[in-house]
Amino acid sequence: MAKELKELTPRSKDYSQWYLDLVIKADLAENSAVRGCMVIKPYGYAIWEKMQRQLDDMFKETGHVNAYFPLFIPKSFFSREADHVEGFAKECAVVTHYRLKNSPDGKGVIVDPAAKLEEELIVRPTSETIIWSTYKNWIQSYRDLPLLINQWANVVRWEMRTRLFLRTAEFLWQEGHTAHATADEAVEEARRMLNVYAEFAENYMAMPVIKGTKSASERFAGALDTYTIEAMMQDGKALQSGTSHFLGQNFAKAFDVQFTDKNGKLDYVWATSWGVSTRLMGALIMSHSDDNGLVLPPKLAPHQVVIVPIYRNDEQLAEIDEKVAGIVQRLKSLGISVKYDNSDNKKPGWKFAEYELKGVPVRLAIGGRDLENNTIEVMRRDTLTKETVSCDGIEQRVKDLLDDIQQNIYQKAFDFRVSQTREVNSYDEFKVEIEKGGFLLCHWDGTPETEELIKNETKATIRCIPLEGDKTPGKCMVTGKPSAQRVIFARSY
Amino acid sequence: MAKELKELTPRSKDYSQWYLDLVIKADLAENSAVRGCMVIKPYGYAIWEKMQRQLDDMFKETGHVNAYFPLFIPKSFFSREADHVEGFAKECAVVTHYRLKNSPDGKGVIVDPAAKLEEELIVRPTSETIIWSTYKNWIQSYRDLPLLINQWANVVRWEMRTRLFLRTAEFLWQEGHTAHATADEAVEEARRMLNVYAEFAENYMAMPVIKGTKSASERFAGALDTYTIEAMMQDGKALQSGTSHFLGQNFAKAFDVQFTDKNGKLDYVWATSWGVSTRLMGALIMSHSDDNGLVLPPKLAPHQVVIVPIYRNDEQLAEIDEKVAGIVQRLKSLGISVKYDNSDNKKPGWKFAEYELKGVPVRLAIGGRDLENNTIEVMRRDTLTKETVSCDGIEQRVKDLLDDIQQNIYQKAFDFRVSQTREVNSYDEFKVEIEKGGFLLCHWDGTPETEELIKNETKATIRCIPLEGDKTPGKCMVTGKPSAQRVIFARSY
Repeated sequence: MAKELKELTPRSKDYSQWYLDLVIKADLAENSAVRGCMVIKPYGYAIWEKMQRQLDDMFKETGHVNAYFPLFIPKSFFSREADHVEGFAKECAVVTHYRLKNSPDGKGVIVDPAAKLEEELIVRPTSETIIWSTYKNWIQSYRDLPLLINQWANVVRWEMRTRLFLRTAEFLWQEGHTAHATADEAVEEARRMLNVYAEFAENYMAMPVIKGTKSASERFAGALDTYTIEAMMQDGKALQSGTSHFLGQNFAKAFDVQFTDKNGKLDYVWATSWGVSTRLMGALIMSHSDDNGLVLPPKLAPHQVVIVPIYRNDEQLAEIDEKVAGIVQRLKSLGISVKYDNSDNKKPGWKFAEYELKGVPVRLAIGGRDLENNTIEVMRRDTLTKETVSCDGIEQRVKDLLDDIQQNIYQKAFDFRVSQTREVNSYDEFKVEIEKGGFLLCHWDGTPETEELIKNETKATIRCIPLEGDKTPGKCMVTGKPSAQRVIFARSY
Repeated sequence: MAKELKELTPRSKDYSQWYLDLVIKADLAENSAVRGCMVIKPYGYAIWEKMQRQLDDMFKETGHVNAYFPLFIPKSFFSREADHVEGFAKECAVVTHYRLKNSPDGKGVIVDPAAKLEEELIVRPTSETIIWSTYKNWIQSYRDLPLLINQWANVVRWEMRTRLFLRTAEFLWQEGHTAHATADEAVEEARRMLNVYAEFAENYMAMPVIKGTKSASERFAGALDTYTIEAMMQDGKALQSGTSHFLGQNFAKAFDVQFTDKNGKLDYVWATSWGVSTRLMGALIMSHSDDNGLVLPPKLAPHQVVIVPIYRNDEQLAEIDEKVAGIVQRLKSLGISVKYDNSDNKKPGWKFAEYELKGVPVRLAIGGRDLENNTIEVMRRDTLTKETVSCDGIEQRVKDLLDDIQQNIYQKAFDFRVSQTREVNSYDEFKVEIEKGGFLLCHWDGTPETEELIKNETKATIRCIPLEGDKTPGKCMVTGKPSAQRVIFARSY
């Protein structure tokens, strides 16, 4: 039983299948009866809730408030911003009717042709248009600015090839939409939120990211600049983990949102938008997990510690229960979330496998000999190493261990990324290196033509133009034309 | 300015317009560009977030976990449960296509007829069907039960006549969906969650409610029994504030969800579902507010206290700022949320009016003379009474005051309900009394025919058959047939 439960396709054999096995077997999510839509199961949702809570706190600390805008967007709204309609209105869910009626054959229901909408409604793929049509009534003067609003919502993009968490037709996300009096303030906001995302990724997900800007062809539809955080998964591919957009005055012009500045002059408002989604769940899973299952950063684990009793009879269990009650209390007093699993329908070995699969950072096990010796066995999930220690001061030891695990899995992912990142100076070398995976730092002439040629020939895209690090100019590896700085090429999710 | 901002239609003149004025002017919500869909504005959403957080904690304390299921439901799912399709699949948003394309005239986009879905998708009006189709794979044995899951989500019901918060096409809610091994356990769960709702309504919203069951014709479509909490609004009308349903084996049979019990016997699973929505915002507003604006219970107020400085010049403001900083710190140390509004573009009178409108429970004001005397003016929003007190110990005084306001507005609403509730013994008397509003306790013969006759002639419905209180049998006021106990009739929202 334990073996069957745990069995994942090894990463070395088929990384993609390993990921899918893990998402299913660790009870994170599954496909639903509706094509492309997932069910987020309670254990997966508990991790997402921890992410949400933390991000929400960070948004509020930076002065943002939450609001809620309609799920539906009138079709005509998409046509107002030319790039935006190209980017988003094409593959989408379209509501055309508002009523069903009994089918004439008495079997089931059919769409009532008499209940056709005058104008079709689009299920939001992103909310810039409906939000900016609302902001028009909220903004008259510089006193109304900045407007710093976030929304937690579901969105739908009709994806043809879907993959749990990474690409689904419906997904959950947050979308910030802010309005500012000047371009500088809007750019500052877009960068501030990029930094919030990077801080969240690194300090909570323990996932190192590279901050940068997207090339023009990879920008958000309607943005003047798109900032991104890019992470490297264990197979060397890049995963775009969060984006923040400087939208200029595009949406303000499309929805006629003007304000009177301090001097009484009318001007269009400057905008940003920024978002992260349940895709982060995929990033989290692929950053740290192994062939035994999930590895979760302690700061996002629904249970940070699990305690498993090993007993011969009810009498011994009762003794262990009593001992553990004290330990649980001491752990909780340090703010550590702990689960004591003394269920009697599963053997300890089965439980060990299950909690390894589910990525609980620290496992404590306690048996008869431990009772005699006042000891307990401590296992850390990241390295799978065990030691037997005294029960005295166990709470502080576990606390330190959780901190160490958080730090260790970050460092491991960071070291991996460093080892898989290299400078490449010729296109021939590039074609060889890209097959090995990882991030390639290359000079590029800044044109979409060269970018597309590389993409078509190698499936590699420019993940970002890094904001930090080496900014030495050079020559494009393909055309030899001048390049302002090296950019990151990689294959990606 | 202050006058214009505050001005609400008085309740005595037009209660319905007063409500709408208040929702708009207190920045709670507004209508959107999409018919029937509302925008929940930041201040309104902040109150909803407080409700959510508290309810979520209460659900978790009673052993529930959150998950997320698809927004879309295949049309055929609705036909599986006969009552359910009648109740829900009729007025709904139907997705028929998944792509738009450029219009031939080059102006905008049109639905691409080539992208028609094989089976239409319904935007969920409630999720029993999609969830029970999922539970089929999650439940095999009694060991998988009970399954105690909640979802926070948006749902859509195509309402023709909408009203902010009270009845909107899209609204936010939570829906619990649980599965049990026995009918008794499911009934116990349905009642447990009704009690959670009642506790939340009374202890957090400060809104007294009557717990009861619905008559057969008012039951949830697909339920064997619907439990409800009913509150009385200030105009004497009833507002159904939360419902909890015992679904029997209806959905398990519709989706073939069977389990093996301890004796190895196969049986269908027993179900409940229960939900509250953003409608609670409407209930909250109409329970306590007055002609000056919102009155919020301290436990759900985004800011429990606002402090307004009254100053002649910048020098004096600096002195007040310093004094207030200490007070703010002491209030926060007692867990009180406080806003200090020293913005210089609004006069104190304007601020007073604004925070009254927004229902901040306690307002503190401090001026030059207060600095000299170490005093501060305290106003409570519920009674609009003021007193000037010493700054020493102000934090404890405010804390006590908040408790008192929470208790006082509950008591006021309770007393009002009692005053507007009366026993009526003849149908002639009923027709007179129902025009005065309030809850009428009457004997009813238990038939849908009598219920419908009363509804058609008086617009009054049976709000509930109370679970508590007088259970003396009697004779139906209309037909004279036997009645098991008095039930509550009222007009309702």
